[in-house]
Amino acid sequence: MKVTAQKIADLLGGTVEGNPDVMITHLAKIEEAGEGAITFLANPRYTHHVYTTGASAIVVGQSFEPDHPVKATLIRVDDPYRAFSELLEYYNESIPKKTGIEPHSFIHPSAKIGKNVYIGAFAYIDEKAVIGDNVKIFPHVYVGADVQVGEGTILYPGVKVYHDCRIGRNCIIHAGTVIGSDGFGFAPNGSDYKKIPQIGNVVIGDNVEIGANSTIDRATMGSTIIRDGVKLDNQLQVAHNVEIGENTVIAAQTGISGSTKIGRNCQIGGQVGMTGHIRVGNNVRIGAQSGIINDVEDNKVLIGSPAIDAVNFRKSSVLFKNLAELYDEIKELKRQISKGNKS
Amino acid sequence: MKVTAQKIADLLGGTVEGNPDVMITHLAKIEEAGEGAITFLANPRYTHHVYTTGASAIVVGQSFEPDHPVKATLIRVDDPYRAFSELLEYYNESIPKKTGIEPHSFIHPSAKIGKNVYIGAFAYIDEKAVIGDNVKIFPHVYVGADVQVGEGTILYPGVKVYHDCRIGRNCIIHAGTVIGSDGFGFAPNGSDYKKIPQIGNVVIGDNVEIGANSTIDRATMGSTIIRDGVKLDNQLQVAHNVEIGENTVIAAQTGISGSTKIGRNCQIGGQVGMTGHIRVGNNVRIGAQSGIINDVEDNKVLIGSPAIDAVNFRKSSVLFKNLAELYDEIKELKRQISKGNKS
Amino acid sequence: MKVTAQKIADLLGGTVEGNPDVMITHLAKIEEAGEGAITFLANPRYTHHVYTTGASAIVVGQSFEPDHPVKATLIRVDDPYRAFSELLEYYNESIPKKTGIEPHSFIHPSAKIGKNVYIGAFAYIDEKAVIGDNVKIFPHVYVGADVQVGEGTILYPGVKVYHDCRIGRNCIIHAGTVIGSDGFGFAPNGSDYKKIPQIGNVVIGDNVEIGANSTIDRATMGSTIIRDGVKLDNQLQVAHNVEIGENTVIAAQTGISGSTKIGRNCQIGGQVGMTGHIRVGNNVRIGAQSGIINDVEDNKVLIGSPAIDAVNFRKSSVLFKNLAELYDEIKELKRQISKGNKS
Repeated sequence: MKVTAQKIADLLGGTVEGNPDVMITHLAKIEEAGEGAITFLANPRYTHHVYTTGASAIVVGQSFEPDHPVKATLIRVDDPYRAFSELLEYYNESIPKKTGIEPHSFIHPSAKIGKNVYIGAFAYIDEKAVIGDNVKIFPHVYVGADVQVGEGTILYPGVKVYHDCRIGRNCIIHAGTVIGSDGFGFAPNGSDYKKIPQIGNVVIGDNVEIGANSTIDRATMGSTIIRDGVKLDNQLQVAHNVEIGENTVIAAQTGISGSTKIGRNCQIGGQVGMTGHIRVGNNVRIGAQSGIINDVEDNKVLIGSPAIDAVNFRKSSVLFKNLAELYDEIKELKRQISKGNKS
Repeated sequence: MKVTAQKIADLLGGTVEGNPDVMITHLAKIEEAGEGAITFLANPRYTHHVYTTGASAIVVGQSFEPDHPVKATLIRVDDPYRAFSELLEYYNESIPKKTGIEPHSFIHPSAKIGKNVYIGAFAYIDEKAVIGDNVKIFPHVYVGADVQVGEGTILYPGVKVYHDCRIGRNCIIHAGTVIGSDGFGFAPNGSDYKKIPQIGNVVIGDNVEIGANSTIDRATMGSTIIRDGVKLDNQLQVAHNVEIGENTVIAAQTGISGSTKIGRNCQIGGQVGMTGHIRVGNNVRIGAQSGIINDVEDNKVLIGSPAIDAVNFRKSSVLFKNLAELYDEIKELKRQISKGNKS
Repeated sequence: MKVTAQKIADLLGGTVEGNPDVMITHLAKIEEAGEGAITFLANPRYTHHVYTTGASAIVVGQSFEPDHPVKATLIRVDDPYRAFSELLEYYNESIPKKTGIEPHSFIHPSAKIGKNVYIGAFAYIDEKAVIGDNVKIFPHVYVGADVQVGEGTILYPGVKVYHDCRIGRNCIIHAGTVIGSDGFGFAPNGSDYKKIPQIGNVVIGDNVEIGANSTIDRATMGSTIIRDGVKLDNQLQVAHNVEIGENTVIAAQTGISGSTKIGRNCQIGGQVGMTGHIRVGNNVRIGAQSGIINDVEDNKVLIGSPAIDAVNFRKSSVLFKNLAELYDEIKELKRQISKGNKS
């Protein structure tokens, strides 16, 4: 990236104050920005950085009035946060993208490959797999037999998709994530266990993003389902026959046990555990490290292990810290009562 | 799969009621089943589905007596759950299995490869590795030098086995799991740390299943040991010199610290953490998200972090929720006593 | 390894008591050692093993005086633990190491490859990547465009490093670890979410070790930073824009949320969760399974979720176990007071 401040102002529909010809080479946070950087001011708490930053340009709002001299060129826009997001995308799209099929990849002759795809070296596409247009499959990806990958989806290096699974359009699956491994199902058989074959699959909707090294198990029968717009962080564990509703967001290292159904537009923290065969409603918010062992109604806000109402949790946690004092007080009360009884 | 209901009845030793010629193409849960599906009724709670399911056939017990008309063909057997499990296996075995050595695999000339194996493209088998008969090694698997893999074992895509490790017979290791990475051992060395070389290995028994993206570290010296029949879920972390006894089952995301020994026939929930250098007995059951910091005797049932007796845990958790009320009651008692003392 | 006890004594600067010609083939723990093994005695708790071990030689301190006959050859040194560590390293270095570039690897013509490197089959090195001297890149490793890998660093099988990330010198990254995947950043956009491009990178210092299947996300802008000497265990999750200070050690399955800064020389247990945008000081110690939701001052020792002072935690945990009794006592106090008031 190498453009003038003026050019960026034109792109964002903004106006320049200061040197319009200063060269911008990269984007940075205001507290870290140096020469060549463009940054932005959206949160007033960061205003003092405007006067000290080494940035060459700053995207600011229409109402911003400096009360000290500013060295950087200012670009005024209506919504600096949104404008800077556009700039991030502009920067991101300027990075050259790979296309074509690299040598040393394995594509089964019966697989169907769409137009304008990238398939990296050492990628493996098994029989009857269907790869949509504009899909990017990075090196070391494994796409099993009969798998479908929708248009515009990106599978980063080392993603493994077992046979029969379906991934929608415009999804992003990060490196090392495994989709369609066997659900954890065993029947007791005397003193040992007998494996229950897992013959279902995983179905992932459109616009889903899944972080790195996550695991989504295939259903015993039927499908494990991740619906449109779901965002899952790194090291998520999703067991067999789980369903996750539209636009639900789940932070890293959370685990969801078998057959649990989660509604839409939920926000679930990191390292949460959910027991199997429960229903979590829509718009539910669950704090990090919680343990969910029962059904949860719509719109609830829970935290703790086992999880309780968030307000209760905060009060009880404060008291937990001083449980020893509480205990001493009770001992003292007993002493006083026993004295009173004797007198 | 495309067989008549009669053929399935013959396979299961059952009898047909209804159309014996209806074609069965797949297996499904009773609440999800549509045309072409065969399903089963084992739990009486699901009986009402028998009258509404779209399934073409249902496996039922000898004693089942419908009290409404049933559209689906019934197949009567002695134990519908067991019969359906057999059917799952029959289905699973009907899926064509890969054999042979695909091009683009790397097999060191000194490696010994058994009969009737599958070795996928981009698999890497290092020197002196020994691969038993009927083993299946999927693409992107790494088998280090001197590794032994027993007969009938399956290593799914991207499994990594470091040098010198041994895997028994008829094991299943799911995608992305790492076996034999260095134990986490460092000696303080002034303000930084010095690595303690990890020269042991991992030894895995027969009939072990390990889920996806798990990690089993090699021993500092000697072996990290997973005994026969152990079932480990996804994202398990097993540290150096740990031992896990026969037929113990551990759910996802649990971590076991160095040198801890776990007995046989234990059932351990997900997201449990165990400290190092402890002994957990046989037939122990541990609830999800527990923290185990001391030795555990045989047959104990524990939960909590730190873990306590499960009955205590449930009582205390209920009270924890209302700790603020408890606190208010004590304040009130103090007030009353102080008033009483003054009067 | 096949050397005499005398040769090992010479190596360690020790003196032999017993047969100097006994052949040593491997190293073992004193309680597991058999013929051909050399072991050591550092902790007096293990002294009784000296008389029963099957080891061929034992490294002992100058002051050790046996009070029963010892079958094994003794090698006396000043510090048996340190001497044995040297022996572990000697053994480790005697294992032949791979060098050279194996066929079936993919190296972009614009990548710069140092001297004396190992690049395994199916490794992928993208354009303009810079690989230092003596680096070892195992099979199935992915090194993205413009990545820098410092001298002497080892990337074990299946490590994935996204574009633009930098790894220092003499680092060890274990199998399946992902470096530089996108941070988990989304802006609400009506009922769904819009991805915030993650255009920063990951910068890892020198002498860092990272375990297997860990994930280190790239920064939104700027860098996620792991400083010199940091040791991270398996299945660590490090979010975007996190910084971890020099020589901090973190055990397995811990997760650190976005923009949190951790100081140097901290010791952090396994399965800990840290919220985002907090500061943890230097020399902090945090117990396993803790939840850190606020800034932590230097030298603090914390545990619990949410974490509190370790001494408080231990007291409160003991009382938590008996919360039901506490509750009964309060009920009894209320009864007595109510009786007292009536009388």
